[in-house]
Amino acid sequence: MKTNLTVLYFSGTGHTAKMAEAVHRGAAAVQDVAAALIGLRNEDIVAGRWKNDETLARLDASDAVIFGTPTYMGGPASQFKAFADATSERWFQRAWLNKLAAGFTVSGGPSGDKFNTLVYLFTFAMQHGMVWVGLGETPFNDQGINRLGAYGGAMGQALMEPPEEAPNAADKLTGEMLGKRVAEVAVRWRRGA
Amino acid sequence: MKTNLTVLYFSGTGHTAKMAEAVHRGAAAVQDVAAALIGLRNEDIVAGRWKNDETLARLDASDAVIFGTPTYMGGPASQFKAFADATSERWFQRAWLNKLAAGFTVSGGPSGDKFNTLVYLFTFAMQHGMVWVGLGETPFNDQGINRLGAYGGAMGQALMEPPEEAPNAADKLTGEMLGKRVAEVAVRWRRGA
Amino acid sequence: MKTNLTVLYFSGTGHTAKMAEAVHRGAAAVQDVAAALIGLRNEDIVAGRWKNDETLARLDASDAVIFGTPTYMGGPASQFKAFADATSERWFQRAWLNKLAAGFTVSGGPSGDKFNTLVYLFTFAMQHGMVWVGLGETPFNDQGINRLGAYGGAMGQALMEPPEEAPNAADKLTGEMLGKRVAEVAVRWRRGA
Amino acid sequence: MKTNLTVLYFSGTGHTAKMAEAVHRGAAAVQDVAAALIGLRNEDIVAGRWKNDETLARLDASDAVIFGTPTYMGGPASQFKAFADATSERWFQRAWLNKLAAGFTVSGGPSGDKFNTLVYLFTFAMQHGMVWVGLGETPFNDQGINRLGAYGGAMGQALMEPPEEAPNAADKLTGEMLGKRVAEVAVRWRRGA
Repeated sequence: MKTNLTVLYFSGTGHTAKMAEAVHRGAAAVQDVAAALIGLRNEDIVAGRWKNDETLARLDASDAVIFGTPTYMGGPASQFKAFADATSERWFQRAWLNKLAAGFTVSGGPSGDKFNTLVYLFTFAMQHGMVWVGLGETPFNDQGINRLGAYGGAMGQALMEPPEEAPNAADKLTGEMLGKRVAEVAVRWRRGA
Repeated sequence: MKTNLTVLYFSGTGHTAKMAEAVHRGAAAVQDVAAALIGLRNEDIVAGRWKNDETLARLDASDAVIFGTPTYMGGPASQFKAFADATSERWFQRAWLNKLAAGFTVSGGPSGDKFNTLVYLFTFAMQHGMVWVGLGETPFNDQGINRLGAYGGAMGQALMEPPEEAPNAADKLTGEMLGKRVAEVAVRWRRGA
Repeated sequence: MKTNLTVLYFSGTGHTAKMAEAVHRGAAAVQDVAAALIGLRNEDIVAGRWKNDETLARLDASDAVIFGTPTYMGGPASQFKAFADATSERWFQRAWLNKLAAGFTVSGGPSGDKFNTLVYLFTFAMQHGMVWVGLGETPFNDQGINRLGAYGGAMGQALMEPPEEAPNAADKLTGEMLGKRVAEVAVRWRRGA
Repeated sequence: MKTNLTVLYFSGTGHTAKMAEAVHRGAAAVQDVAAALIGLRNEDIVAGRWKNDETLARLDASDAVIFGTPTYMGGPASQFKAFADATSERWFQRAWLNKLAAGFTVSGGPSGDKFNTLVYLFTFAMQHGMVWVGLGETPFNDQGINRLGAYGGAMGQALMEPPEEAPNAADKLTGEMLGKRVAEVAVRWRRGA
């Protein structure tokens, strides 16, 4: 039976979607892994509250979830946060205990307070009792992997450029490495159960 | 001319509203201060985006803003974040540069990841170039002021109790002290201009 | 072959040592786990730099490390940080990649900025490419487990009381649960390799 | 009477010292400001504890303090932390209440977990009841000011280059702007007292 991994993201301008595709690509290439890619939608937020039972069920069935969101005004996009807030019932049931979690984020500046968003994603995963897998890469390579110097997760940079141009190839490769790493950890984690 | 201070909060269950009233009470009691209390509304969030020009204009006219939100799933409520994300135009214009900022939050546990929400509010204020005023109190007093041991802002505790009972009197007094302190700092800050 | 787990801590006043013993007790009780308890010593810090090759070698040989430190002035004790800074060679060699990590901290207030120390321990572990295991408990139980409401790790409270009295029984039980959980995760993680 | 501002920093390799000089230069150029530059020394740390009464007295006499430290292993250098821990008596006396505070940090990566160090400096200042002044700059300028995208304070980047080359001119200009801003805020803050 395959290890189920879901990349769950919000993208407002298409940049984080490109990063999410890269993360998904990296995960899907790992043997014995079934990787899904799910984007959160504005229309699922009504009067400030997000609801989509199908998406929650997909996460229930996942061994690992990689969360992605732009960094807006120093934190996760409110749309991502609306999803997070809507998982409180799962939290109460401890439904996601011992699933693996990881994260990525995109914003305009090299630092750009993206660290804060990764800490939020970590904090969210910890509330659920998930086990957190970071990027695990250093910037010391020729391909630009982790060029921004992130450790808790993957960071991509994009400002006003079209999503075809930013995040750039190095950032997307960084995303791929995150997807690959989380998938490999998930296979090992499942095997040990 | 009076110093303008606004307490801007979201409350989902009424607990943070009680804390906000306490903060407002503390600020309003300071001489030469005009203090407003504004609650964010779910209905101002349409398809994930918050919009209320009147509220933004009120903040534009404020010398100091005290932000308040529950801590949901380890961070600010998505409804508060929707407001924060909607201030990006003000950010670009540097419209709130050198205003004073402060914050408070409410959640069920004594720690309860509330620190993370205060760091978010700080990070948000820093993006705007605001100057941050913390609580400035220690827990060493007989009235329960700052009983939870918070420094970056005020913390209140409330779980399932009715809002009339929680946050308790000590937490509300802590909120009052925050309001008082920010108002006094704002008067001094305005006088020095 | 047994799974090796080390509880590595600094204690200035004896309170964090009591918490560390509890964490160690919880880990040592798990089948197939060999748990060690190592306290950092002031005398290993000379002119601001920590050095103890034996301790580093013990960590090299561990499958999981649980880090503990008091929260002093809003962050980890400088003595713990001196140890952390001295691991930069291990960081460069990626020597601790894929080891498990977890953390606990003790300070006087219920919140007391302890969250910030746990985020530091997480950030440190992420730099090393370790996989982070949180507390995984809610406060909803009759024994006081996680009474302070922490998720990223375990929190204990102690001010001026003798170490025999604080952290209290509930906090120490919380520490035991952290030790138990990390040990169980480590056994599974090793089995999957 | 002049407004007293102190730049208090630790530098292990000389890079943070260069940044500190830039911050000091920016502050010293502001009218009516007397700016001091103090580096923390390894030899003041004996058996893990920092002690230098003269430095503490200089901070007691300052209206504003700008703290600087490298980011080592995801947080402030242990030597800086040793200083911070040694201020607990000042904390107890509330000796630094209402002084202004700000911060800067240097590390190898563009992000490089520097955000976490700024949050630590903020948390430390909040424990003391200080008022926090951020950088207040955006990256939208031709001179490279705030090229890394930091808001809570100033960030500089330096890896293995000689301190004469890194942090680069843009980062040092960013440091100057921080010094200038904090000094101007301090003059206004003092005038309003």
